[in-house]
Amino acid sequence: MKQGKLFVVSGPSGTGKGTVCGRILDDRENTIYSVSMTTREPREGEEDGKEYFFTDKEKFLKMIDDGELLEHAQVYGQHYGTPKAFVADMLKNGKNVILELDVQGAMSVRKEDPDAVLIFILPPSVAELERRISGRGTESPESKARRLSEAINEISCADKYDYIVINDDLDKAVEEVKAIMTAEQLKVTESSAGVIEKYKEES
Amino acid sequence: MKQGKLFVVSGPSGTGKGTVCGRILDDRENTIYSVSMTTREPREGEEDGKEYFFTDKEKFLKMIDDGELLEHAQVYGQHYGTPKAFVADMLKNGKNVILELDVQGAMSVRKEDPDAVLIFILPPSVAELERRISGRGTESPESKARRLSEAINEISCADKYDYIVINDDLDKAVEEVKAIMTAEQLKVTESSAGVIEKYKEES
Repeated sequence: MKQGKLFVVSGPSGTGKGTVCGRILDDRENTIYSVSMTTREPREGEEDGKEYFFTDKEKFLKMIDDGELLEHAQVYGQHYGTPKAFVADMLKNGKNVILELDVQGAMSVRKEDPDAVLIFILPPSVAELERRISGRGTESPESKARRLSEAINEISCADKYDYIVINDDLDKAVEEVKAIMTAEQLKVTESSAGVIEKYKEES
Repeated sequence: MKQGKLFVVSGPSGTGKGTVCGRILDDRENTIYSVSMTTREPREGEEDGKEYFFTDKEKFLKMIDDGELLEHAQVYGQHYGTPKAFVADMLKNGKNVILELDVQGAMSVRKEDPDAVLIFILPPSVAELERRISGRGTESPESKARRLSEAINEISCADKYDYIVINDDLDKAVEEVKAIMTAEQLKVTESSAGVIEKYKEES
């Protein structure tokens, strides 16, 4: 079976990356979201191994020490991370795995797995991003300003990715990310020489 | 305007690469075949600059000496080659340029232009290739055997390409080559940092 590929998708909040990834998961067989590990309590209806792998702080910190996480971060005092073993299993089973991560997380993954493919989703323009962030009625002006400045910081890192997709048209952006996934699977790798030998022997 | 990309498509005879490329040229705006230069006489109805650029042997050899060809080859005593200036002009005008070349030509292009994207089209299997070659009624058994052995030699070089597409279903192969072309244009390059700066300034 052909090994799957790991795709990391980043983009500032308001860029529509969640919608793009959701559409790809609906359309593409063999493509799944990674399941994160967290130290936060499960909410009602959440199942271990489905929404998250639930664990405690001690075990989580041990996993960090043992190098068993592709990336990890702390949010509101709780730990979140991506277990290497889960991703490796899925890839081995021929699944393409999507990780939605911020720039820091994406760079960790690149370091741990140089074969990961990094895609940055840009909003149509910074002005449009500003409009989208301003449109969120419940936030304070300070919070909106901070969010915009964070977004611009993230965008500055887009050239560290493998691909940049501009989400000015959702259908087009979805097609472009799909094209990247298709092309990446057709790429010649170190294992291609073996595939070609096998192909020739079948004559 | 965004610079176009140069795509080199190879594959043994009987692999259907001409059909695949033809479909892509029909479907994709902004994608064109390169026009070759040749020393052979124009046939009736052929126009200079359309089917070929026609020239004489002396001028052709001078172009080789001056490094003005991306690749060149001799067939039945006549010279054929790809003028660098023509391809560079098209790319500058945002056109994607397709070159159909054998392995030797493809490797010349890679040397001259490391940004060129090399795609190898494989037939579904060597057995199927054998059937396709045998199906050509007019050839002698020796000529068919030679053609098959050349095909297998070419296939051995497939891992020197950037991408391998297996043409077991024409529609699928066309979609795959299109996906490669789309993905290649979304790739982050050295010039992406400038694009991102400009993008941010427009806020």
